[in-house]
Amino acid sequence: MAKNLKVIFLGGVGEIGKNMTALEFGDDIVVVDAGLGFPTEDMPGIDLVVQDISYLIKNKDKVKGYVITHAHEDHIGGLPYALAEVPAQIYGSRLSLALIDNKLREHPGVKVKATSVKPRSVVNIGPFAVEFIHVNHSVAGSFALSITTPVGVVFISGDFKIDLTPPDGQIIDLTRIGEIGKKGVSLFLCESTNAGRKGFTMSETTVSEKMDEIFEKSKDKRIFVATFSSNVHRVQQLLDLAEKHKRKVAFSGRSMINVTDTAIKIGEMRVTQGQIIDVAHVSTYADKEVLVILTGSQGEPSSALVRMSTGDFNKIHLGPNDLVILSSHPIPGNERSVNNVVNNLIKRGVEVVYESLAEVHVSGHACEEELKIMHALLKPLFFIPVHGEQKHMRKHAEIARRMGMPERNIAIPDIGDIWELSTNNLRRAGSVPSGIRLIDGKGCGTTDSNVLRDRMTLAEEGICIVGIGYCKKTGEISSGPDVMTRGLLFPEEMEGVIPELKQVILESISKISLTGDDANNIRNQIRRDVQQFFHKQKNRRPIVVTMLQAN
Amino acid sequence: MAKNLKVIFLGGVGEIGKNMTALEFGDDIVVVDAGLGFPTEDMPGIDLVVQDISYLIKNKDKVKGYVITHAHEDHIGGLPYALAEVPAQIYGSRLSLALIDNKLREHPGVKVKATSVKPRSVVNIGPFAVEFIHVNHSVAGSFALSITTPVGVVFISGDFKIDLTPPDGQIIDLTRIGEIGKKGVSLFLCESTNAGRKGFTMSETTVSEKMDEIFEKSKDKRIFVATFSSNVHRVQQLLDLAEKHKRKVAFSGRSMINVTDTAIKIGEMRVTQGQIIDVAHVSTYADKEVLVILTGSQGEPSSALVRMSTGDFNKIHLGPNDLVILSSHPIPGNERSVNNVVNNLIKRGVEVVYESLAEVHVSGHACEEELKIMHALLKPLFFIPVHGEQKHMRKHAEIARRMGMPERNIAIPDIGDIWELSTNNLRRAGSVPSGIRLIDGKGCGTTDSNVLRDRMTLAEEGICIVGIGYCKKTGEISSGPDVMTRGLLFPEEMEGVIPELKQVILESISKISLTGDDANNIRNQIRRDVQQFFHKQKNRRPIVVTMLQAN
Repeated sequence: MAKNLKVIFLGGVGEIGKNMTALEFGDDIVVVDAGLGFPTEDMPGIDLVVQDISYLIKNKDKVKGYVITHAHEDHIGGLPYALAEVPAQIYGSRLSLALIDNKLREHPGVKVKATSVKPRSVVNIGPFAVEFIHVNHSVAGSFALSITTPVGVVFISGDFKIDLTPPDGQIIDLTRIGEIGKKGVSLFLCESTNAGRKGFTMSETTVSEKMDEIFEKSKDKRIFVATFSSNVHRVQQLLDLAEKHKRKVAFSGRSMINVTDTAIKIGEMRVTQGQIIDVAHVSTYADKEVLVILTGSQGEPSSALVRMSTGDFNKIHLGPNDLVILSSHPIPGNERSVNNVVNNLIKRGVEVVYESLAEVHVSGHACEEELKIMHALLKPLFFIPVHGEQKHMRKHAEIARRMGMPERNIAIPDIGDIWELSTNNLRRAGSVPSGIRLIDGKGCGTTDSNVLRDRMTLAEEGICIVGIGYCKKTGEISSGPDVMTRGLLFPEEMEGVIPELKQVILESISKISLTGDDANNIRNQIRRDVQQFFHKQKNRRPIVVTMLQAN
Repeated sequence: MAKNLKVIFLGGVGEIGKNMTALEFGDDIVVVDAGLGFPTEDMPGIDLVVQDISYLIKNKDKVKGYVITHAHEDHIGGLPYALAEVPAQIYGSRLSLALIDNKLREHPGVKVKATSVKPRSVVNIGPFAVEFIHVNHSVAGSFALSITTPVGVVFISGDFKIDLTPPDGQIIDLTRIGEIGKKGVSLFLCESTNAGRKGFTMSETTVSEKMDEIFEKSKDKRIFVATFSSNVHRVQQLLDLAEKHKRKVAFSGRSMINVTDTAIKIGEMRVTQGQIIDVAHVSTYADKEVLVILTGSQGEPSSALVRMSTGDFNKIHLGPNDLVILSSHPIPGNERSVNNVVNNLIKRGVEVVYESLAEVHVSGHACEEELKIMHALLKPLFFIPVHGEQKHMRKHAEIARRMGMPERNIAIPDIGDIWELSTNNLRRAGSVPSGIRLIDGKGCGTTDSNVLRDRMTLAEEGICIVGIGYCKKTGEISSGPDVMTRGLLFPEEMEGVIPELKQVILESISKISLTGDDANNIRNQIRRDVQQFFHKQKNRRPIVVTMLQAN
């Protein structure tokens, strides 16, 4: 048993987000990434979602390190929560570590040792020799990982694309990938985001070309570009364009300011003297002299762009001489919010350019031909598609099959799966506890409690609270029944319903004995009758809570 | 004043759904359509959304009739609520009236007189002569309206496309539209759904051609096609294909069964002897002998397809020999649900064909070239784009301008706008109460009440209920404080929080006088302190309700 490598999928397979994979050999575990996921509609109030790491907690002493491929939230957002319970050294690029450091400032209790690594450097973590390979992606400082283990090389793509004209000139390290392939790769874990998209992803620099045209055509307008703050190369291209078109640049939005600050500080972003102005001073410049780079490209409610679109941003007011470019693609689930922003801007007379109209955004992920290049270079013995929904992973498996890989050498994992790799075999070997932890304010919960179900019911059906005071000895009602509702009755319905409801409660009580019956029985009786009343009256089944005060 | 026509936009402009336009001249009003809208994320528990019709209620006696362009929910779904308060005769195609009749069966209190009309027939309603013009659309029996008024002809496109090879051979009545244009159109109200999409919408019959290929290729599989029940022509094509490929057809999903029943009954749909089987008998046929046509193409939670995808449909179990075709496009906001269905099906090994992979759906709405044909034929004096979001209406206005219409003859309305048309002038003339009514179970409310805000807070922050019994005379606490929470604390948090919270409440009470202070003051004090406690402990601000029982 100890001769095999366990590959444990803690997140990111069959779903978008919360990527986390653990490699275990004997007494050593190395964890690749620790991302977050976003709550779905059935998780109201939940701020974010991270992996169930009870397996890691149980094997805390084995965990020797976290290796970070890149600094997107779905790869690093869960780190503070993982580190809090399973502390270990982290390894990543300089930019990744700087952005992780930003994040950890909000979690003062979490301490971490971090080691920054350069492309092609190798770090030994227990029995694992981890080599970091430069790849192109929509955040700078992104790595693939070539992990030499006692049973062979495991190559993990991370998120990547093949950009032959990247803004910083650093093409993905195909040479090294080819060398590794030549020496022999046992298992390839490859991202699947764009499996199903034919062809080749456009180069990041095509965005700059298109933007240049737009800047040229809109010489006299004030220009706003909304994009992800982590897309350091996109922002750099905008800075360069601003320089060319003689515009000052203001950053707006907390994460845009934080990330650009950090990137400038560590030399990942270059600005010229006097190029950056404060967003509060934008209005002191002529429209044609300004470019604002801001957050909100996903329609995030409290973002700079959304507040500008609704007129709630007091430093800048948008109007017909403004041009807003949405330089991103809506993440599934955000389509409606993004659409609202577009409509609100258009209503203000603002000109809006978004992806479906022009090539102002490119994907950071490999399309089919790029995936094929990786498969061709690595020629792995076994292949597991990761980082995608079922449909993406199946598509990716199909690509591998079409390239000649035998069906039996391809596995499609589920969350929680353990796959065991030996020198000549890959097989499923059980599973670990998997699923999600809900981050709820400062608290933390699981989906199997009543809390989420109650929240959904509260939102959809409302709540009816009944208060009754009675004498312990006689059972006589001394006060009430009082009734309060929240989220249940519209004002115009109150008057008709409340007196009748009180009558229903009195009848309900008359069926039981306040002195004899158990308090839970009393509450259950009242709950049943009140719910039945609302179902009949209003076709609603609210939560009913009864507060009994015996004196 | 009475010499002018008022065009009143009660819905469907600057938004998707709840289409409703009223034309008023002197003492007469005719209402065009009464659709519903769907609740957005900030309206939990709300079933559907209809127009604020207080203007019509106030002018009830003037309302002489409802004219229905076609039987989609966004054009007829609000009728039961409008008719309940403003009864008047309705006019529409035979299919529209049959589907409205289905709908009204769920509202037994609403009685209606209905007159079915044929293409090119003219109905006089007060001073309005309404001519019904056959158009192509994704529901059969669709009309545009040419309304001759005392100030000129108002042409309302309804929803339409120009289909030169429609399944039933009935091409949109371009000849008649040309004649009307030649006589002179004063005002053109035209739908804008696909303004911004270049070219020409594909013909409905191309779907059948594509499906035929898929049926041919999947000879041995059991086939499921999910589509809108109202798309009678799509369903007819599927019936014809089933006949050709020797498959029996089962309908599944309540609205699919209702609509096809109705359409067959009135002769809008043709089935052959023995073609239809009950969905419960599907499993008694070989896979290759069956086609199931079902609802759920939008990922609706309780639909047949969604239940099949999660294994919760006991009559049919899906597996690797099944092919599911999603013959529709996700309505904005439904992308995530549709995506979940696809992934769940794929996980069961089902082959899934959806729009982005193949042409198994076409739009029912005119693209730019079709819109231009209408403008060219009608040559209206004034133009108002309707039926779309801001971005669609602006695009449509641009098209009209590019075709030579002067800017000043184009208006982009807001909901509630009154636009006044005279023989040679169109101008905005104030507004009427507008906005939405929320249909909430059997009840009905407005957005300005606290109910929705409370529901959102309940969902996101939860509720804390405090119960205290005390002596009226002495102010001594006789029972409690008791605390119950819902949707607030996860089980693992309870133990730590509740005792501390009770202490906070006791301290809160000690600051006030239970005998002297007003009950509201007491409640406010407790609310503030409890909220502060949760904010500090958990970064949450729950609703706090205090039940005081004085005895």
